[in-house]
Amino acid sequence: MITKPQETTYYDIVGIGNAIVDVLAKVGEGFLTERNLPKGGMTLVDAKTAGKLYADLVPEREVPGGSAANTVAGLASLGGAPAFIGKIHDDELGQVFTRDIGAAGVDYFTKPLNEGPVTGRSIVLVTPDAQRTMFTYLGASKKLCAEDIDENTIKASRITYLEAYLWDEECDKEAMIRAAETAHAYGREVAFSLSDKSCVDRHRQDFMDFVKNHVDILFGNEDELVSLFDGEDFYKSLDLIKAYVNIAAITRGAKGSVVVNGRTKTFVEAEKVDNVVDTTGAGDLYAAGFLYGLTQGRSLGTCAIIGSIAAAEIIGHYGARPEISLRGLVRNKLLSYGKRA
Amino acid sequence: MITKPQETTYYDIVGIGNAIVDVLAKVGEGFLTERNLPKGGMTLVDAKTAGKLYADLVPEREVPGGSAANTVAGLASLGGAPAFIGKIHDDELGQVFTRDIGAAGVDYFTKPLNEGPVTGRSIVLVTPDAQRTMFTYLGASKKLCAEDIDENTIKASRITYLEAYLWDEECDKEAMIRAAETAHAYGREVAFSLSDKSCVDRHRQDFMDFVKNHVDILFGNEDELVSLFDGEDFYKSLDLIKAYVNIAAITRGAKGSVVVNGRTKTFVEAEKVDNVVDTTGAGDLYAAGFLYGLTQGRSLGTCAIIGSIAAAEIIGHYGARPEISLRGLVRNKLLSYGKRA
Repeated sequence: MITKPQETTYYDIVGIGNAIVDVLAKVGEGFLTERNLPKGGMTLVDAKTAGKLYADLVPEREVPGGSAANTVAGLASLGGAPAFIGKIHDDELGQVFTRDIGAAGVDYFTKPLNEGPVTGRSIVLVTPDAQRTMFTYLGASKKLCAEDIDENTIKASRITYLEAYLWDEECDKEAMIRAAETAHAYGREVAFSLSDKSCVDRHRQDFMDFVKNHVDILFGNEDELVSLFDGEDFYKSLDLIKAYVNIAAITRGAKGSVVVNGRTKTFVEAEKVDNVVDTTGAGDLYAAGFLYGLTQGRSLGTCAIIGSIAAAEIIGHYGARPEISLRGLVRNKLLSYGKRA
Repeated sequence: MITKPQETTYYDIVGIGNAIVDVLAKVGEGFLTERNLPKGGMTLVDAKTAGKLYADLVPEREVPGGSAANTVAGLASLGGAPAFIGKIHDDELGQVFTRDIGAAGVDYFTKPLNEGPVTGRSIVLVTPDAQRTMFTYLGASKKLCAEDIDENTIKASRITYLEAYLWDEECDKEAMIRAAETAHAYGREVAFSLSDKSCVDRHRQDFMDFVKNHVDILFGNEDELVSLFDGEDFYKSLDLIKAYVNIAAITRGAKGSVVVNGRTKTFVEAEKVDNVVDTTGAGDLYAAGFLYGLTQGRSLGTCAIIGSIAAAEIIGHYGARPEISLRGLVRNKLLSYGKRA
């Protein structure tokens, strides 16, 4: 499935995306209503709004986040060798991000900002009903530029993995295209995650062009794929995507996932989860498991099973980074399904 | 996918089934109406009826047939190493069967009858509208017994492949169970083809028991699977079958095929065929291609693609044996789909 590397690779995956720290805070219902804040979902906010919210809170936990960053951290937990490229400011939250991604086993060398916007953060307000309301300030993340795309890291990675969230800024777009072109110049593969339905809605034509011209492996959920084809029927969208990419791995929540590869479509059941606590990061960890399987030469069905196992672990607790070694979890689950570990 | 053989195997597949010669004859519409014969489909007939029909005809071609025999002949054309077990009488048609299966590259050593019923035949009347009306006399085929199941051949074969058509006689049933038990005793795998909807209708409970207790890899079409689950919805049947067998490969004509394996279901497109001449043998050749892929360690999706390529070749001409080397055909098709050959 994977192109045979033209030279030895050192990394399985390099993830490129927003470098974000999630700031979790428990608040009463009143906190939202007093400030007239919409409950649920994710809203992009400016520095002032973020700063104001942050000042009013008692942050309970600062948890590293960012979609592609979650994926590479998951890959490391599975036993793979990942790197990450993304922009922080050399401030306190930036140091939290750097320390945590390193501790997770991910190589990360992107030069931080010393001036300009602070490190990106997503303020996550958890109300007593366990609902999450997120306000994201991208900050330094938006300053990732083409010159941050280290050629040697891309060359050393079997797969370059990009998140669609990056697309909002002009310099980010250039960075993504540079990364994809560099990867292909060295005979590597390019994976792309559609990230979010509203993100696809904003950039439909751009994403279609990017997918057509630069992407080998596409990740997304049912809503995102349907949005890419402008509201087309889901099954029809599955038929259409096969002309654009070698592999499309599409998640469908509790309904499992579908892998499209040329003339084949493989439907894979979701893992059962007794207590869904927080679905944030489910797609990121599915991609981690899937890509880990792919770099290990597993069948597409088994790749999807590994993705589902990793996703199931993440949604069983708060935060989008694994709380146990995914390597052992996957090994035991695969053995229980009669597959080699 | 395949159990690692405990000792070296010499054959990829041993097929066990009815040894039948198809006698093709062109007839006018009057031939059927004068004799009050139902047009289309396949009817089992006794020796007297078969003899009478045969005497009235000018046979145009005698073509080797038999479901599992077609499968192993297809496997040989694909480049695999097959054997066949099935019963003929040492008569003229028996010699036709033996010569043709040997020429196709299949090892065949079953001791022929010297007395009793003659070699099985299927009289195929082709009317000017290209429709086929078949009358099958099983003859010597029905005399296959447990002692014909050569232990060394089963032991030497990675997969023992059985056709459901065999089930109608008591001694045939014993032969099938003996074959399956012998295969498993040597750590080999057992494949079973459901053959025909009416056959499944007749033996539903027996087949369910056999599948549950003896089968690793199940072949059938949509109608046959649904009949096995007594008219259950098709998609529900796909869900149910996974508890019984390791792999179920279910064909759906122009809609392609589905492979069920534990938590995964892989839907594969059919090959396009410009001119469908005769669909007889499509299922047999699908099984040949699928099993060839499996013994070559290919993914289940690729196994199904190879099956579809082999089936498409067969339905483009009369008769259920390949008219070109399937090995080259499959190689070229796989390369055109971006897969290794």
